[in-house]
Amino acid sequence: MKFVIIGGDAAGMSAASRAKRNDPQMEVTVLEKSQDVSYSACGMPYNIADPLRDMDELVVRKADVFRQKNGINLLTGHRVDKIDPVAKTVSGVIIPISPSTSPSISDSVNTNLSANHESEDYQTFSYPFDKLLIATGAAPLVPNLEGFDLPGVMPLKSLEHGRAIKSFISSSSVKKAVIIGMGYIGLEMCEALRARSIDVSMVKPGSQFLPWMAPELADVVKQELIDNNVEIYSGYDIQRIEQSDKNKNKNPSQNINSRLSVICKNLNTNENLTLNADIIIAASGVKPCSELAVQAGLETSISGSISVDKSLKTSDDNIYAAGDCADSFHVVTDEKCWIPLALRANRAGWAVADNVCGIDTLLPGVAGTAVFKMFDMQVARTGLTVKEAVKAGFDAVQVVIQTRSKAHGHPGSNAIHVAMAADKKSKRLIGVQMVGKDGVAHRINAAAVALHAKMTVADFVQTDLAYAPPFGPVWDPLLTAANQLLKKL
Amino acid sequence: MKFVIIGGDAAGMSAASRAKRNDPQMEVTVLEKSQDVSYSACGMPYNIADPLRDMDELVVRKADVFRQKNGINLLTGHRVDKIDPVAKTVSGVIIPISPSTSPSISDSVNTNLSANHESEDYQTFSYPFDKLLIATGAAPLVPNLEGFDLPGVMPLKSLEHGRAIKSFISSSSVKKAVIIGMGYIGLEMCEALRARSIDVSMVKPGSQFLPWMAPELADVVKQELIDNNVEIYSGYDIQRIEQSDKNKNKNPSQNINSRLSVICKNLNTNENLTLNADIIIAASGVKPCSELAVQAGLETSISGSISVDKSLKTSDDNIYAAGDCADSFHVVTDEKCWIPLALRANRAGWAVADNVCGIDTLLPGVAGTAVFKMFDMQVARTGLTVKEAVKAGFDAVQVVIQTRSKAHGHPGSNAIHVAMAADKKSKRLIGVQMVGKDGVAHRINAAAVALHAKMTVADFVQTDLAYAPPFGPVWDPLLTAANQLLKKL
Repeated sequence: MKFVIIGGDAAGMSAASRAKRNDPQMEVTVLEKSQDVSYSACGMPYNIADPLRDMDELVVRKADVFRQKNGINLLTGHRVDKIDPVAKTVSGVIIPISPSTSPSISDSVNTNLSANHESEDYQTFSYPFDKLLIATGAAPLVPNLEGFDLPGVMPLKSLEHGRAIKSFISSSSVKKAVIIGMGYIGLEMCEALRARSIDVSMVKPGSQFLPWMAPELADVVKQELIDNNVEIYSGYDIQRIEQSDKNKNKNPSQNINSRLSVICKNLNTNENLTLNADIIIAASGVKPCSELAVQAGLETSISGSISVDKSLKTSDDNIYAAGDCADSFHVVTDEKCWIPLALRANRAGWAVADNVCGIDTLLPGVAGTAVFKMFDMQVARTGLTVKEAVKAGFDAVQVVIQTRSKAHGHPGSNAIHVAMAADKKSKRLIGVQMVGKDGVAHRINAAAVALHAKMTVADFVQTDLAYAPPFGPVWDPLLTAANQLLKKL
Repeated sequence: MKFVIIGGDAAGMSAASRAKRNDPQMEVTVLEKSQDVSYSACGMPYNIADPLRDMDELVVRKADVFRQKNGINLLTGHRVDKIDPVAKTVSGVIIPISPSTSPSISDSVNTNLSANHESEDYQTFSYPFDKLLIATGAAPLVPNLEGFDLPGVMPLKSLEHGRAIKSFISSSSVKKAVIIGMGYIGLEMCEALRARSIDVSMVKPGSQFLPWMAPELADVVKQELIDNNVEIYSGYDIQRIEQSDKNKNKNPSQNINSRLSVICKNLNTNENLTLNADIIIAASGVKPCSELAVQAGLETSISGSISVDKSLKTSDDNIYAAGDCADSFHVVTDEKCWIPLALRANRAGWAVADNVCGIDTLLPGVAGTAVFKMFDMQVARTGLTVKEAVKAGFDAVQVVIQTRSKAHGHPGSNAIHVAMAADKKSKRLIGVQMVGKDGVAHRINAAAVALHAKMTVADFVQTDLAYAPPFGPVWDPLLTAANQLLKKL
């Protein structure tokens, strides 16, 4: 059995390792276009925050370990350009290790467009497969606008991006940054850049600060940014990036720190806004890398992600997809969704390996549980917001409460804000968001499990959650919210 | 409708307040023997730790607020001595506010035996009821041994006890303490006393340090005690308490700080052990205060707790019981259990009020979820240990794992230990214990919800739990344990 995997990150390497554990005799080949495999991508903002830490601390396991200890035929620098589902082959080119693949500023953008690299002279390869896994991940959405190819304009998705940003900050004495986009990565980078004493402005076209969160809670997060001297510009169309005038006039050799300007327009007032920066983080979200699947005629779904069933199989019986490039079912709606997160990628990789090895495995789906830290604030969500729920056809109702992170009379208590939504028809819990300085990150998991169990609010309110004064009030914030929500059902 | 409640703590005051909210016209009378109502009893060790804090900071709501704002006929100093279920009356005596009810050292023990107070001269009372709630709580188990009535031997259950301990520590320049018992209160008091620079020894007859925890995890907790210079003596029979010789010879008026000795015998070797102390905390557990119920002919169950159905009704149709004096159903076994904890007391109080007001409410039961903090260690449990599960008839199997509290490459990561048990027959998750310096307290709740939902390990392992590098590995410690456990099923 020849099991070929395209992509050597979370889903790909999880699948490869598990397949070899399941069946040490299996021929497992991983084709990874970059030189990096198995690293903690989500750790990059925290690493960038600390100039003393090496980016390679985020590498969980080196390529050689996978080759020697796990017996995986791991081929880095192998870019797949074509899947032939009939001949059951994948083919592509070998990208030599050269300055063009090592971290560099200009390459940090181009890497995402690597399929467009000139590659006539590259050595080609072709591999036959019995079963194929597409685990190509997601790529940053970099707008096709003037100036996004300027040095100093940088996305953050791969370890190469992380290295490039970190080395640029150090080498170019960056003092001012603009972050385009206000998603998880943008917000985490905010903290990282402020930790490096860099002034930060954030800008995006959307008028709502965190559209996936109850506005009352989004305001709390926003205030934390303001308290940390971050400037926020929501509702601004990004028009182009320019090298700012004073740099244009300078001799470029005198200043490797190209000073940039983001030219924006207020979508309400049409007024112009110019934000100056030494570095611009392009963090407007990501898109699934599904081009190979599309070319091979596989079905796609939400946001162009590769459509898979609960066994992770695509529309081709011999081809699976897993990780950020593939869709999933949502446990609240039972409908398809595309929520690219790390745990799902790892879990889906394992499930593909099991299915390929004849251990039938179905994944029920995701609850969209996510958490991030931003300065002193923990921000978490699971399930649907009330707005998403209404859109999905639920008769949704929500409560927003504020309670405390510790018991009455216990010192050091902080506010915890909870938004909780339910369906009036089924009485089911359908989503929770939480914000607070402590006690948020792991608390959200109780609600996530309740979503998987399709609990009603009345069921959830009866759950026996832990209590001790240093860790919360007698009635856990989730239970207090559920008690309030119950009255509305 | 006359709704009478015996006991003005968590269950009693929750029921009283909720009944008045449900039906403002209802006549709600609370009979509380002490002067304290509605306080955070669990907060006492943390309060004792800090000499600058007033014990009354733990009072959530004062008696007068319940009277004036909530319209509750709250009668403090009213000790009920008899329930007549046929005549539907309760009767007792009014304990005057006098030195004997204010905090004092000798009274801190006697308060628990208050039913034995001489009370011929006290004013009596009798109240008729339509519905009665017994919410008499639990009392410390003070062994009937020589010396347990000496000044400086103190239990910790009521606010009076808390005040007495705190004032004794301050006034008697306590330097050495012995804690008899190693339950939650004993362990929390350990931290509190060490924070006051008091040397601490703990002693108990049982040979296992924390019998409700996998031994591997109990060892981690024990090590934390040792690292904080606490001496631990397990497997010692406590024989008596003596005033130590040097005090016996002294003029007692010269030294209010009676130095004491706990005389113990090693249950294996029969060797004697004498532990000296200025204060002795009697923390050998609690017993349900069910004497009134027994005298009224009501059924009792586990450990003498008052037997109630899922509507909290006792064997008498007009009498309910809630809080630490009553039993409950366990969601894992569906059998009766007695696990006296604060959330259950509050929840049961509400449920009684609803049922009394005609809003039919059934409580599914408890999972026995509990957490405590001890020095830098968070210790949590839910459900059954593998030993308890075998005893309850399950074909139980468990895993014990060690993982990390933060993602690979993230600084400040601590060990997290997880023990997880499942039933081989039903494949259900049946219990989890966790120990670690961070990320334990709220994580346990996800497992608690899974127990309520009667999830199999295979279901639980698929739950979408939150991930971000500062808060845990991609695979949450609970999922890693569940993944391991799945292999044993």
